[in-house]
Amino acid sequence: TLALFQQALKSSSSLPERTRPLLEHLTPPRRPLKGTGTNTVSQALKWATPPRNVLLVNKDDDRVRNSLVTLAQHLHDTYPGVNILLEPSASETLRQALPYAYTFENISDLHRTCDAVITLGGDGTILHAASLFSTTKVPPILSFSLGTLGFLLPFNFRDFREAWEDMYHGRARVLRRMRIGCRAFTSTGIPITRGVFGEGGAGMIQQAMNEVNLHRGREPHLTLLEIYADNKFVTEAVADGLIVATPTGSTAYNLSAGGPIVHPGVDALMLTPICPRSLSFRPMIFPTSTRLQLRLSEKSRGAAEVSMDGRMACVLNQGEYLEIGVGDGLGIAHKEGEESEDRGGILCVGRGEDDGWVQDVNELLRWNQSFQGRTLAHGNGE
Amino acid sequence: TLALFQQALKSSSSLPERTRPLLEHLTPPRRPLKGTGTNTVSQALKWATPPRNVLLVNKDDDRVRNSLVTLAQHLHDTYPGVNILLEPSASETLRQALPYAYTFENISDLHRTCDAVITLGGDGTILHAASLFSTTKVPPILSFSLGTLGFLLPFNFRDFREAWEDMYHGRARVLRRMRIGCRAFTSTGIPITRGVFGEGGAGMIQQAMNEVNLHRGREPHLTLLEIYADNKFVTEAVADGLIVATPTGSTAYNLSAGGPIVHPGVDALMLTPICPRSLSFRPMIFPTSTRLQLRLSEKSRGAAEVSMDGRMACVLNQGEYLEIGVGDGLGIAHKEGEESEDRGGILCVGRGEDDGWVQDVNELLRWNQSFQGRTLAHGNGE
Amino acid sequence: TLALFQQALKSSSSLPERTRPLLEHLTPPRRPLKGTGTNTVSQALKWATPPRNVLLVNKDDDRVRNSLVTLAQHLHDTYPGVNILLEPSASETLRQALPYAYTFENISDLHRTCDAVITLGGDGTILHAASLFSTTKVPPILSFSLGTLGFLLPFNFRDFREAWEDMYHGRARVLRRMRIGCRAFTSTGIPITRGVFGEGGAGMIQQAMNEVNLHRGREPHLTLLEIYADNKFVTEAVADGLIVATPTGSTAYNLSAGGPIVHPGVDALMLTPICPRSLSFRPMIFPTSTRLQLRLSEKSRGAAEVSMDGRMACVLNQGEYLEIGVGDGLGIAHKEGEESEDRGGILCVGRGEDDGWVQDVNELLRWNQSFQGRTLAHGNGE
Amino acid sequence: TLALFQQALKSSSSLPERTRPLLEHLTPPRRPLKGTGTNTVSQALKWATPPRNVLLVNKDDDRVRNSLVTLAQHLHDTYPGVNILLEPSASETLRQALPYAYTFENISDLHRTCDAVITLGGDGTILHAASLFSTTKVPPILSFSLGTLGFLLPFNFRDFREAWEDMYHGRARVLRRMRIGCRAFTSTGIPITRGVFGEGGAGMIQQAMNEVNLHRGREPHLTLLEIYADNKFVTEAVADGLIVATPTGSTAYNLSAGGPIVHPGVDALMLTPICPRSLSFRPMIFPTSTRLQLRLSEKSRGAAEVSMDGRMACVLNQGEYLEIGVGDGLGIAHKEGEESEDRGGILCVGRGEDDGWVQDVNELLRWNQSFQGRTLAHGNGE
Ligand SMILES: NC(=O)C1=CN([C@@H]2O[C@H](COP(=O)(O)OP(=O)(O)OC[C@H]3O[C@@H](n4cnc5c(N)ncnc54)[C@H](O)[C@@H]3O)[C@@H](O)[C@H]2O)C=CC1
Ligand SMILES: NC(=O)C1=CN([C@@H]2O[C@H](COP(=O)(O)OP(=O)(O)OC[C@H]3O[C@@H](n4cnc5c(N)ncnc54)[C@H](O)[C@@H]3O)[C@@H](O)[C@H]2O)C=CC1
Ligand SMILES: NC(=O)C1=CN([C@@H]2O[C@H](COP(=O)(O)OP(=O)(O)OC[C@H]3O[C@@H](n4cnc5c(N)ncnc54)[C@H](O)[C@@H]3O)[C@@H](O)[C@H]2O)C=CC1
Ligand SMILES: NC(=O)C1=CN([C@@H]2O[C@H](COP(=O)(O)OP(=O)(O)OC[C@H]3O[C@@H](n4cnc5c(N)ncnc54)[C@H](O)[C@@H]3O)[C@@H](O)[C@H]2O)C=CC1
Repeated sequence: TLALFQQALKSSSSLPERTRPLLEHLTPPRRPLKGTGTNTVSQALKWATPPRNVLLVNKDDDRVRNSLVTLAQHLHDTYPGVNILLEPSASETLRQALPYAYTFENISDLHRTCDAVITLGGDGTILHAASLFSTTKVPPILSFSLGTLGFLLPFNFRDFREAWEDMYHGRARVLRRMRIGCRAFTSTGIPITRGVFGEGGAGMIQQAMNEVNLHRGREPHLTLLEIYADNKFVTEAVADGLIVATPTGSTAYNLSAGGPIVHPGVDALMLTPICPRSLSFRPMIFPTSTRLQLRLSEKSRGAAEVSMDGRMACVLNQGEYLEIGVGDGLGIAHKEGEESEDRGGILCVGRGEDDGWVQDVNELLRWNQSFQGRTLAHGNGE
Repeated sequence: TLALFQQALKSSSSLPERTRPLLEHLTPPRRPLKGTGTNTVSQALKWATPPRNVLLVNKDDDRVRNSLVTLAQHLHDTYPGVNILLEPSASETLRQALPYAYTFENISDLHRTCDAVITLGGDGTILHAASLFSTTKVPPILSFSLGTLGFLLPFNFRDFREAWEDMYHGRARVLRRMRIGCRAFTSTGIPITRGVFGEGGAGMIQQAMNEVNLHRGREPHLTLLEIYADNKFVTEAVADGLIVATPTGSTAYNLSAGGPIVHPGVDALMLTPICPRSLSFRPMIFPTSTRLQLRLSEKSRGAAEVSMDGRMACVLNQGEYLEIGVGDGLGIAHKEGEESEDRGGILCVGRGEDDGWVQDVNELLRWNQSFQGRTLAHGNGE
Repeated sequence: TLALFQQALKSSSSLPERTRPLLEHLTPPRRPLKGTGTNTVSQALKWATPPRNVLLVNKDDDRVRNSLVTLAQHLHDTYPGVNILLEPSASETLRQALPYAYTFENISDLHRTCDAVITLGGDGTILHAASLFSTTKVPPILSFSLGTLGFLLPFNFRDFREAWEDMYHGRARVLRRMRIGCRAFTSTGIPITRGVFGEGGAGMIQQAMNEVNLHRGREPHLTLLEIYADNKFVTEAVADGLIVATPTGSTAYNLSAGGPIVHPGVDALMLTPICPRSLSFRPMIFPTSTRLQLRLSEKSRGAAEVSMDGRMACVLNQGEYLEIGVGDGLGIAHKEGEESEDRGGILCVGRGEDDGWVQDVNELLRWNQSFQGRTLAHGNGE
Repeated sequence: TLALFQQALKSSSSLPERTRPLLEHLTPPRRPLKGTGTNTVSQALKWATPPRNVLLVNKDDDRVRNSLVTLAQHLHDTYPGVNILLEPSASETLRQALPYAYTFENISDLHRTCDAVITLGGDGTILHAASLFSTTKVPPILSFSLGTLGFLLPFNFRDFREAWEDMYHGRARVLRRMRIGCRAFTSTGIPITRGVFGEGGAGMIQQAMNEVNLHRGREPHLTLLEIYADNKFVTEAVADGLIVATPTGSTAYNLSAGGPIVHPGVDALMLTPICPRSLSFRPMIFPTSTRLQLRLSEKSRGAAEVSMDGRMACVLNQGEYLEIGVGDGLGIAHKEGEESEDRGGILCVGRGEDDGWVQDVNELLRWNQSFQGRTLAHGNGE
């Protein structure tokens, strides 16, 4: 792995002697949370030692790129102990602008070293950042919007100095967002290693922040899906597809498909159909202790597409199935000495005591907008 | 009836000699429409001779009352042939302000004489105005909003001079809004004459502009209702209630109950349940040739309340039923020589060629408001 | 065209002398309807002269094929003046079984000669049959289900003798089902001739029985669509797609997407979103006089797929748009002397006076199924 | 209280010497549960000592009454240590049939003595039984259906011997169903003691099993309600009403109002509007740590009715508000030494390891019933 980072250096950093330190200060900062219970909405983010390896994630857009350079420069100038990490593509693009940044060739090096993540861009950028850690724990994420607002973006970029300072010094509050894990199996129960399920080790659980969905995709005909809960048959769905969402994902595809809006502090899995050929398929909400199995019926006329957080994960053939559940429930082994609250979920830095969720639902989703010009106060509907 | 109007005079008018003319120029101006088809969205309003007896309808509110006086004064000053009609209560209140206005004691005198209606206030004021003609044809209605916007209110009061002038001279466009008729029967098919069904002659058809609904009201328990279409059993509904709405009413209670938004140019009856205990009770839309029967099941635990356009019409007991359909279909006899387009519906003066409906749906109902700050244009959800 | 049919003969018929008569008795039988108004639910099917050229449409399935042979044999034996027409593929498969059947190479020959259509199979078979006439009038259709029930399938195959006899002798009742037409245009308004829009003459209107839909298809990202009604901007939809459905199609994809159930006797166009990113996008219903334009926004990230009745019609690129309306409204010129009721719609042979629609909605869609074991009659929810 | 029970005796028991023991063996058996976490779906019911004072709740119906006598007789004959408790009205009716049964005059005596509850009848009977304990802990409940099935009724009466035996000997499994508490306040924050809020001590928290709802009731006009979460303003609702439901209640009124179906193992509060005048009021789900305040706006035109589990609780006037939350959260003080899992919720005896919930949703609610006669397996929709 040293070799890998030496290669990495060549592409983005002129400071070879920095490679080694990067490999040294590893996991401890990555379990920052003090607090209890998954149901607590907002918790304090505490570090044993401040974060040192910070991944900056951007999207491919001039404005965002310039902001990222500003931010990186600030970190470099003001926090000497902090190393800037970039994804290989960003590293390439910003070779001139950020000569001191580190990058990686092998995703496992990122997993072993990254203490914190900062994203700049839309909600999609956080989803992307989380997906870089889809087979392992995610470091705490600090997210900035640029211009447009986003549902997962508590901070405006112009406040980046204070927001980072608070995070760095453990003065920030975090909201733990649950993830769901997913594995795919053949009809005889053998782990599938196609698509993303081949990454990170065969049969690895892939974690999603918003949802896993199974959709007819390019197939013109309805899919026929069997749903099981803890291996017991629940129902057969004839539909465009099915969504299994987290509370975070409740305001994403689930919302469009007619599902309820669920506070991220609720521990639940949502099963929501996409255009079901049934008048009576209402969204259903399960405890996080439930594991759902979604099987593409042998009788289905075509294949179906699995997506996680909007990224195509793999194509499922007739008879094959997914198993979906909350991280731990799917079998991620506890390491000795790890505390329960260390596992699962994504710690998203928030603005304060209040999680701001109600405000976002109101302002961004325009939830329950009243009708214009109508006040019911004074009789006769005026 | 002469006597009635002489009485009426005493309360609101000091011009007894005006009583007689009021009784003379009767129905001809009340069939103004030239045009064909009920499906044509906007039609020209043409009068054989200009309207002379104009009912002004207001609601009990200082601001509205002042506007009404301004309007009446303008009509009185500028259109000498026009008589102002007021409802008895308004006549009483405005005795000083509008000494020349006429009123009536018997609603049938209003029906025989009124050529046009002007309303000032909220949507409820038009519903009220239409309800004054719930057993007969409605004269064309010109509606002004005061301050707040309304769905049925095309004009702002400040434009009252031009709007009236256009209506008077037959330069206005009108939108024909369908009404639905309703009669109530005992379990053995005898017309019920309780509540509004006793008004205007036993077993009269009562017409509504928005909807007829049957609701548990004060009864804590669900109602059990049987639905028939053209006397054939359709289904049994266990629900808070049922709505049968016109397209106009689609944006009223029907909308709240989850029904679709229907352009007033569509000829259809909507059947929408209110909180049904069923996962599969989807709103259903029938042709206007259908007559629906809603029967309170003998097995229902309590009585149910019938409302029309938000006014309580009567209480229905177990076994009793409503018959609901579009005016004609319920048996209003054609008079000889009447043309088909003379019957049914309410001619509402509109702003122009375009009916403005799409704009209202967008601006007033905030239909399909997009999410704040999100443009999907440039990748990654920003 | 004589040559075409002679070629056709070679593939499926050993009776060349039958070719000529086929070409002679043409259109007159194809306008069978006596009746008025499109809103009349059930009408009598009357023929000037009985139908002679009958297209049998099946689907590729052994059971269905055997039934088709039984039916064809019966027609051949019992109705000597009736010619059996088959689609080229069926003609090929049934070369031995039905040596006397005719086929065609050029769809326009089918259009010029076919008097009536009989389908065997599921709802998809009627949709397919109608699609063979997607650019012209459709002959009356008699549809049989085989085993499974279908929403568009009034007859069970075992009653085929009586059903055909009634149709042949003009004793049947028909339900007129509206079709919607669709054309595609480039951003500068030039007719698109890709996909099905290239068939039957450039820029031809394609007619659908259920719906036209525009969907992201294989594209992982939401589409951005602009909606116009009669060329006026209505709204911008961020969604998986949009459906414009007929009342017939209300129980197809529209139903799955959450739209209302509309009786085929209603004259209306339904606009229903598929998974819209909006809390306030309610289905909307327009009069059939409205033409809708759906435009794939220039800002959309990917192309979108146009489907008609479940068949892929073409791929739409950014800036391109569809125009959708009821047949005539889209500009099919009236021929001199044609009566209005001759145009548009599909005459589907039904079971009797009653259209059976309510029964189908109840039995097939299980509309408003009450909850098991619950009668509310006797207190306390038992 | 001794006096009370002596009076009680006179009405239903000929065994005065039993009065005293009844008062002695009190609370210990009332905390039977061993287990952890509220999220565990099914837990073992363990008693320190077997239950002795068992309340039998029936509804006023001949069939149910006979079954109750059969059951009481069985308990009396077979379990000598078990005392039968009846509500005063049942005690009166069954004076002859069950001379040995106890009753009470003061509900607090029931609270102090009752170890277990058995209900016979519909879902309403359990709701009623729970309501007897609406201001205190509920003993474990064993529920039997009689003929019709119910959602909260796991056992058929014919199995009463085994079901009781399992419960008595601590071999049963229980499902913990959350309750929500509610208090009412004047606009200045003073506890309201009208209606049920006057029972059991001024300002007592009333607990509901299904839901608390606020509804316009007999008022013809929409209500105007302000919603707060943890005293922060959320939104203003113009609607028929609002429901705050438990997961158990998700299949009751919440379901009819369009809310999602939630497994009783999920810890959440559901806020669901009833007929809101808004296109964008989607059901919302909060963590159980949230307290909701629902306030009838000062601008509302009429009063509103508060119901809990279908029982009218009180009438709320303009400016007054409800505070709703999960038991503990509303301030029920912990007694020293009580363990957390001892508080809150209702332990409902179930059939076995599996909670049977999925089966009930399928069979009773007919969730996702597929369309009749349609298998998509073999092409073309057949
Ligand atoms: N019809 C629909 O609503 C569809 C929705 N999606 C959603 O898109 C997500 C992927 O996002 P992008 O890569 O940005 O794709 P994208 O560019 O298609 O945008 C999805 C939209 O959803 C928003 N979004 C994402 N996560 C959200 C959340 N948790 N709460 C509220 N809004 C959220 C984004 O801001 C963006 O406006 C998927 O996880 C899926 O939930 C994907 C396909 C269709
Ligand atoms: N939960 C609900 O949505 C309820 C709705 N209503 C509706 O109220 C109507 C009576 O109106 P009011 O006397 O003013 O009662 P109201 O004062 O209770 O107000 C009803 C509201 O509906 C609006 N409205 C009325 N007709 C409309 C239409 N055709 N399209 C769009 N908005 C419309 C009014 O502007 C007002 O905001 C009834 O016909 C019924 O449709 C009545 C009770 C409950
Ligand atoms: N999520 C969904 O509900 C989807 C529905 N479709 C529908 O499928 C239709 C094409 O049908 P097939 O070729 O058989 O495709 P298909 O094999 O995918 O089956 C569609 C299903 O819809 C039924 N169906 C078709 N037309 C109907 C109608 N008017 N009323 C009630 N049920 C109807 C068919 O019997 C079949 O069960 C399209 O016109 C579209 O409406 C297509 C894609 C997705
Ligand atoms: N429109 C509606 O759906 C309304 C529903 N209700 C519900 O009725 C309940 C009171 O029940 P009853 O006294 O029996 O009144 P009820 O006699 O009006 O019956 C309500 C129905 O709901 C069923 N039910 C009750 N709780 C249930 C649950 N948790 N899950 C599934 N089904 C359930 C009962 O079996 C019965 O069929 C209230 O708590 C409320 O939830 C009350 C009024 C209107």
